[in-house]
Amino acid sequence: MSLHDEIREQPERLYHLLRHQRQTAEKIAAEIHAREVNYVFLAARGTSDNAGRYANYLWGAHNRLPIALATPSLFTYYAQPPRLEKALVMGVSQSGQSPDIVSVLEEGRRQGCLTLAVTNAPNSPLAQAADLVFDIQAGPEKAVAATKTYTTELMALAMISAALRGAQDDWQALEKVPDWIATLLTQDADIERMAQRYRYMGQCVVLGRGFNYATAFEWALKLKELTYIIAEPYSSADFQHGPIAMIEGGFPVLAVAPQGKVFHSMFEMLARLREQQQAELVVISDDERVLALAQSAMRLPAGIPEWLTPLVAIVAGQLFACHLTRAKGYDTEKPRSITKVTETH
Amino acid sequence: MSLHDEIREQPERLYHLLRHQRQTAEKIAAEIHAREVNYVFLAARGTSDNAGRYANYLWGAHNRLPIALATPSLFTYYAQPPRLEKALVMGVSQSGQSPDIVSVLEEGRRQGCLTLAVTNAPNSPLAQAADLVFDIQAGPEKAVAATKTYTTELMALAMISAALRGAQDDWQALEKVPDWIATLLTQDADIERMAQRYRYMGQCVVLGRGFNYATAFEWALKLKELTYIIAEPYSSADFQHGPIAMIEGGFPVLAVAPQGKVFHSMFEMLARLREQQQAELVVISDDERVLALAQSAMRLPAGIPEWLTPLVAIVAGQLFACHLTRAKGYDTEKPRSITKVTETH
Repeated sequence: MSLHDEIREQPERLYHLLRHQRQTAEKIAAEIHAREVNYVFLAARGTSDNAGRYANYLWGAHNRLPIALATPSLFTYYAQPPRLEKALVMGVSQSGQSPDIVSVLEEGRRQGCLTLAVTNAPNSPLAQAADLVFDIQAGPEKAVAATKTYTTELMALAMISAALRGAQDDWQALEKVPDWIATLLTQDADIERMAQRYRYMGQCVVLGRGFNYATAFEWALKLKELTYIIAEPYSSADFQHGPIAMIEGGFPVLAVAPQGKVFHSMFEMLARLREQQQAELVVISDDERVLALAQSAMRLPAGIPEWLTPLVAIVAGQLFACHLTRAKGYDTEKPRSITKVTETH
Repeated sequence: MSLHDEIREQPERLYHLLRHQRQTAEKIAAEIHAREVNYVFLAARGTSDNAGRYANYLWGAHNRLPIALATPSLFTYYAQPPRLEKALVMGVSQSGQSPDIVSVLEEGRRQGCLTLAVTNAPNSPLAQAADLVFDIQAGPEKAVAATKTYTTELMALAMISAALRGAQDDWQALEKVPDWIATLLTQDADIERMAQRYRYMGQCVVLGRGFNYATAFEWALKLKELTYIIAEPYSSADFQHGPIAMIEGGFPVLAVAPQGKVFHSMFEMLARLREQQQAELVVISDDERVLALAQSAMRLPAGIPEWLTPLVAIVAGQLFACHLTRAKGYDTEKPRSITKVTETH
């Protein structure tokens, strides 16, 4: 299985997850309700940290649960871990191996908190340290750059959110995600052609906001891991607080801007970047106005509710990163300097 | 007052703050104890968000308080704000004007939470929305790039931490910060000479970990605002999860690596970046081994406890950014595309 195969496998893995893990999501939601959790204390790194960024918005907007992102070095390097009273302590990790993430869950358990592992390895140290385990069942991920484990982590987090709300509408929308991704994958050859234009791009920024703040981070991470370009992610709000100054004519701005609550603010900023600062725009959206602004446009299927756009939009970003890697003459299967499991302490 | 003047004014502003605001810190700490706060819900943007990153480590390590970073767009764009039971809701903002930060405090008050504003504008909308106000008393900040309001925000957060612990040792260490910064400022001309080497640098990464994760973010932000280079901040732990792949020979890596709990892991990574990946290193430290690795070394005064190094180390980063701006022929007083108060909604 190559990286490209694993990107294309995503509709099937997500369909599988929806069929087999709804009960797990319901059970986890029931425990969270029973324990009167006040907030979530989340530990993750890399791609899984970006899944956590999605949960930060989704569980906030749909379930009214604030999320504190753990600082694992407080647990491994500094004397006293924080008091975690009334927190759900959650670790997200494909491999379940990272010692610093495991140590956060162990501390949560020691303090009597409810603990949850979201992982592709149900026998891993992380799963063993947790009261509750959500197995994302993505199958073996051979490529070093994570793709299907990202979207299955997002799906797991979205399923728990739906179970917490108990809203049948949410489940009906979730069921459509595999087909939306399959539709997006029909643009594979178009995206391959589009990526050629960026053969000599050395740097870019990646913008997203709200639910798609996570998508901006994950798209940027794939570009850094695979193509070695400097790709810096921002929320469009933070971007206006300073970094926007560095955009000169021709500077590439990649943006995730589907229709929804934050669309108008994204659209205004992208129009300004294009018209006043002569930026180059690469845009993922389902809105014709913003797609028309862009030199390179990747189109989302129509009708995806905003909260589910991150599961579909990132697949366009993955294809773009995969094809750009090949266009630059690099090997998608052997990115330099990174390994599948990074053991940070 | 120019940017350079405001950088040099910092010892005096911090000395002033220590003399005049200890009682304010004690009163805020007493309220936090009285209300049995479980965690902190923090809203901030830009430079003030970096001050929040410092609080995330300091209040975690010294006061065992977890911090959830607010997602202000949940309050302004999405329907339901999170439930904030048992949270201290805190806003940090130089101007106290940003509507999205104010809306987080208003919601906190509406839900009956204790609310705290840390600001340079005690009559601002943010201060008016809060139960408790810590006025950082930095005086008017004329330069568009924030410097003295960053270090006074850090000092305010460190004073509240010391008051929460009630530790006399903490206060004695805090009293020394103005002198440490004054000592560092004697390297001003050396740093000006050193910055010349980076006249044509177009991109870099900035690394820090633990308490100095905040310093890496703030140093990178100053470089982006003032010199328009692509400067991406990372914790050294996250950097190993992928982005390290992009470092090639001569790639500039800026690092904040003082002695302390995370020093060893930083030192190992920097040695590897220099020896195996031929990176160019610009290092702020008080450790001779890591300074000897660097092509460009900025020396911290000896004896600063790790938790206070961020207040001193950032001043070296500010001087570096200021002198590099001039070396590149830009105007430190008129950075393009940013304004002092950014009204994100």
